[in-house]
Amino acid sequence: MELHNTFYLKMAVEYRKLIDVLMSSKEYADVVLHKGEVINVITREVYKADIAIKDKYILLVGDCRDLIGPDTLVIDVEGKYLSPGFIDSHMHFESSMLTITEFSRLSIPSGTTTLVADPHEIGNALGSIGMKAMADEIDNVPNNVYLVVPALTPDCPNLETAGYDITSKDMEDLLNYKHIIGIGELQGFSNAKHVYRNTPEIVTDLVSSTIYARSKGMIVDGNAPELFGKDLAAHIISTGGKCSCHETTTKEEAIEKLRQGVYLFMREGSTQRNMAECIRAVTEEGLDSRRCILATDDMVSADLQTLGHMNEIIKRTIKEGVSPVEAIQMATINPATYFGFDHVGVLAPGKMADIAIIEDLEEMTVEGVFIQGKLVASKGELLIDLPKYTYPEEVKKSVKRGPITEKDLEIEAQGSTARVRCIELIPDQNLTGKLEETLRIYGGIAKPDTSTDTLEIACIERYGRNGNIGKAFVKGFGMKEGAFAESVAHDTHNIIVVGTNVKDMTLAVNRVIEIGGGIAIANKGRILSDMRLPVGGLITDELMGNEVSEKIAELERIVSKELGCKVHAPFMHLSFLTLSTSPSWKITDKGLIDVNNFEVLSPVVK
Amino acid sequence: MELHNTFYLKMAVEYRKLIDVLMSSKEYADVVLHKGEVINVITREVYKADIAIKDKYILLVGDCRDLIGPDTLVIDVEGKYLSPGFIDSHMHFESSMLTITEFSRLSIPSGTTTLVADPHEIGNALGSIGMKAMADEIDNVPNNVYLVVPALTPDCPNLETAGYDITSKDMEDLLNYKHIIGIGELQGFSNAKHVYRNTPEIVTDLVSSTIYARSKGMIVDGNAPELFGKDLAAHIISTGGKCSCHETTTKEEAIEKLRQGVYLFMREGSTQRNMAECIRAVTEEGLDSRRCILATDDMVSADLQTLGHMNEIIKRTIKEGVSPVEAIQMATINPATYFGFDHVGVLAPGKMADIAIIEDLEEMTVEGVFIQGKLVASKGELLIDLPKYTYPEEVKKSVKRGPITEKDLEIEAQGSTARVRCIELIPDQNLTGKLEETLRIYGGIAKPDTSTDTLEIACIERYGRNGNIGKAFVKGFGMKEGAFAESVAHDTHNIIVVGTNVKDMTLAVNRVIEIGGGIAIANKGRILSDMRLPVGGLITDELMGNEVSEKIAELERIVSKELGCKVHAPFMHLSFLTLSTSPSWKITDKGLIDVNNFEVLSPVVK
Repeated sequence: MELHNTFYLKMAVEYRKLIDVLMSSKEYADVVLHKGEVINVITREVYKADIAIKDKYILLVGDCRDLIGPDTLVIDVEGKYLSPGFIDSHMHFESSMLTITEFSRLSIPSGTTTLVADPHEIGNALGSIGMKAMADEIDNVPNNVYLVVPALTPDCPNLETAGYDITSKDMEDLLNYKHIIGIGELQGFSNAKHVYRNTPEIVTDLVSSTIYARSKGMIVDGNAPELFGKDLAAHIISTGGKCSCHETTTKEEAIEKLRQGVYLFMREGSTQRNMAECIRAVTEEGLDSRRCILATDDMVSADLQTLGHMNEIIKRTIKEGVSPVEAIQMATINPATYFGFDHVGVLAPGKMADIAIIEDLEEMTVEGVFIQGKLVASKGELLIDLPKYTYPEEVKKSVKRGPITEKDLEIEAQGSTARVRCIELIPDQNLTGKLEETLRIYGGIAKPDTSTDTLEIACIERYGRNGNIGKAFVKGFGMKEGAFAESVAHDTHNIIVVGTNVKDMTLAVNRVIEIGGGIAIANKGRILSDMRLPVGGLITDELMGNEVSEKIAELERIVSKELGCKVHAPFMHLSFLTLSTSPSWKITDKGLIDVNNFEVLSPVVK
Repeated sequence: MELHNTFYLKMAVEYRKLIDVLMSSKEYADVVLHKGEVINVITREVYKADIAIKDKYILLVGDCRDLIGPDTLVIDVEGKYLSPGFIDSHMHFESSMLTITEFSRLSIPSGTTTLVADPHEIGNALGSIGMKAMADEIDNVPNNVYLVVPALTPDCPNLETAGYDITSKDMEDLLNYKHIIGIGELQGFSNAKHVYRNTPEIVTDLVSSTIYARSKGMIVDGNAPELFGKDLAAHIISTGGKCSCHETTTKEEAIEKLRQGVYLFMREGSTQRNMAECIRAVTEEGLDSRRCILATDDMVSADLQTLGHMNEIIKRTIKEGVSPVEAIQMATINPATYFGFDHVGVLAPGKMADIAIIEDLEEMTVEGVFIQGKLVASKGELLIDLPKYTYPEEVKKSVKRGPITEKDLEIEAQGSTARVRCIELIPDQNLTGKLEETLRIYGGIAKPDTSTDTLEIACIERYGRNGNIGKAFVKGFGMKEGAFAESVAHDTHNIIVVGTNVKDMTLAVNRVIEIGGGIAIANKGRILSDMRLPVGGLITDELMGNEVSEKIAELERIVSKELGCKVHAPFMHLSFLTLSTSPSWKITDKGLIDVNNFEVLSPVVK
């Protein structure tokens, strides 16, 4: 038979051995977790049982006394809960600025054993080469990590510039690469509102990509903020007929998505927190929760270290009135069913022995973690050796432009004052508001005014493709002086900068260019601090998880203390102001974008 | 891209068109079902909504007024319920003796739009050639029909003889043939209790077949009557780690199966009815029902005509205390999820427009049926032309032996009386009991005794492979004279005969041989009636559904009236007495089988 795939060849041999252990009465389990409280996410029950493990797999859940031999390691787990390891169904490593290895180092001790990551950011910056480099890193980690790759970059082809333009031409190559299981977040909002109307040939291209994925039994993630009725239906069909959405922010939207067949990824990350609103479809309306799934989308390393990972999200879901087992279903069997994972997500014979040992079910304190039959973490500490991973040089050259000048950032206007358009930053949301403000004009230039918190924002194309610079104003940062810039700017990841004056803005941008991507803070004509993100301008393979969070905390302290910024997680918030697929006003290298109409607006009202 | 599969190439074009209809405001739906009560099996809700259909697909569920154009057919369904078409997840066409075409003719008007059939019987009789002939017939029908094929025939290789020995050598060829979606019922009971101990190399062969299926994302059905703990775990692993079971008969077994990860197919067919017992795991214990699935397994044409099909099974499930929507989930979204069907099982954009229009939700009266966007049945009548299907000659030559003699059937014994072993027939079950009885010996031959209802039963190998004849006694038929024989005898389908004397038994068997497979009834030295089953000795392609049920009814009447048989559905019951994978005593061409120990027993106690 054509069992070319060595994964399945190995599995056939391993499975045959398991049958021998179960049937022969002469062989025994490697490990028996004795007398735990098993969380059965299939039946939605908790009951006392043992779990026997052989090799990578669960042998039996139940009375396992017969499987204890002289060499079996018996671990007493009486009074502790045994759950399938948790699945994060939609996340971006890039948001943590960590390599897969360093993210795993922080997330495994919290009980997360499976990550489905969308390398959307590195895909925009570097295309296939960047995503394959991430897929290669997966061989370095013990947890289950899968990638879903973009079918289209940039998301709004005529409104922004990416480092690489992904289309259906890339799908065969990408979807047949290791660890890649489908297509990542397909931007429903821009497709329905913009792409279909302006570039319908791109919709045709997308459908050929998604149906190709479907023909291979792969999944297609969607995202469909504020879509209802016909627009939502068109989005679902463009994904190949089965999709998720992790951009749902209201109960009404949650109900609509579930009713129309969308798998509801309830997002609860470092900035966007939508679970409490979405879960009301279940707690208030009593909807079947089988398609409700928890996901973090974007998490910063500090949160991973201090709060935990999926265990924290499950805990919050329980606090919203969901039973512990139903909440755990949302991070185990529900996503496993969506992805078609037959090897993880439940505790049953033949499944991977990925198990979280939980001490307190309401608080979701994870005491120990098994991955593929091996105890990999205990009391928050990783027990295994996990070598640091260094990326190849080819993915470290993503900034391909020379320095800018102060003049490049000036916004011209006429008269003595002008009405200007300001993006309104909304804390903890991708969505923004739209505001107008009056600014004084000095020598034909509209200058930021800290007294009304009207700052300048700019987006500088960094891939050497056209040198575009988009400019506008923003409200909500509250800074009193200086500027900060970064090469993390969703989803095309040009350089974004916000500031109180063009001098510091220029300085910050040029430092980001100089260090090959990263973050820089400037004030009063000098650089206060910076951080290198060499991998695609997005990720560091130089620092470990705790070092990144310390570095980010230091940078945040500077932005807060020295510049007077009032927003928590200012770099994360700034990086989403370029997201041209999420309403209302955003900024790209092409200018101020009215997302609802997909037009470029002048920063100055004419 | 490698979109070789024309199904997906067509789908890409069709999906692209749907997006145009939804987005353009210039194109419209073909059909709008107006103001129905939509049964949403995802959210477990019922609410008022329209369904818009374009081409084969559902465009939108919701307010569809915008999609009504001048040529749209608007059907008023106010007050009626709209359900996804029903799925029968495990069934054998052979049990109805009907072709796929004739079965579909009877089942479509009841709302069944998808059938997953296991051509296990024709596979045993004819091997790949028979199953491919059935797959070919699927092109003739409008409903969705899929096949799951056996990985092993016969099920107990050294205890019975099949027409063809299927092993892993056949899997690549079979699993890549059209309409075949996986492996059919893998006999857990015999594998755990017999095959593993006596022929462990067959377990190795099975695992290579099931893991091959898994590597292709295909399903593997199991069946695991009376398996618990380690035996059940070994069975699950031998299926490749994900399986169903449709042979669960008690609530305790149902709970065990669900807990261990088995998809619980609650069987409710013409003879075996296990749903009422299985469903107690949900109604009494409150278990999550997402993996509870309804299936018929074996249905006779008369029941299809008079009772209906899945609608009847759903109705019975509701009567057991399950809410109508939850019961419908068990025949729609639950099996669709198990099989990985993304195109059917829910009413949502992009899904096939397979819809049952239901008049009364408690009684499950189906008023109309859409398949792939077309109204195919109304008020119990098929509205479309469905041509009768004739099988190729090559599958009509399955009986390959000459006539038997009376002497072949005689059971020798010594003395004047003897204790003999009798299979105890249990009405409406595959399971049998085991009894002993005393018989008089006449000239060294133990003769049946109608006064104690001790009849003779024999199984005659019919494929020209070894000429075996197995013999034993049976209690429970209650016949007073004559004999009847058939070439339907699970699972190897040799000729089975039961009778009050060897003369009539011989006559009946030889008539079955003469007509190339079928049923024959003999009494007092003459044939009373017969029925030809030319396709594999199992199916008629000569009679239509109503003609088959009339013919069977006539034969049953003769067996009842003229022979005095007390069992309803006597041919179905007789045909399961050869099922050597289901306890306790059975008969095969090798003799009386003690299924629990997988030994051949002498019919006479020594």
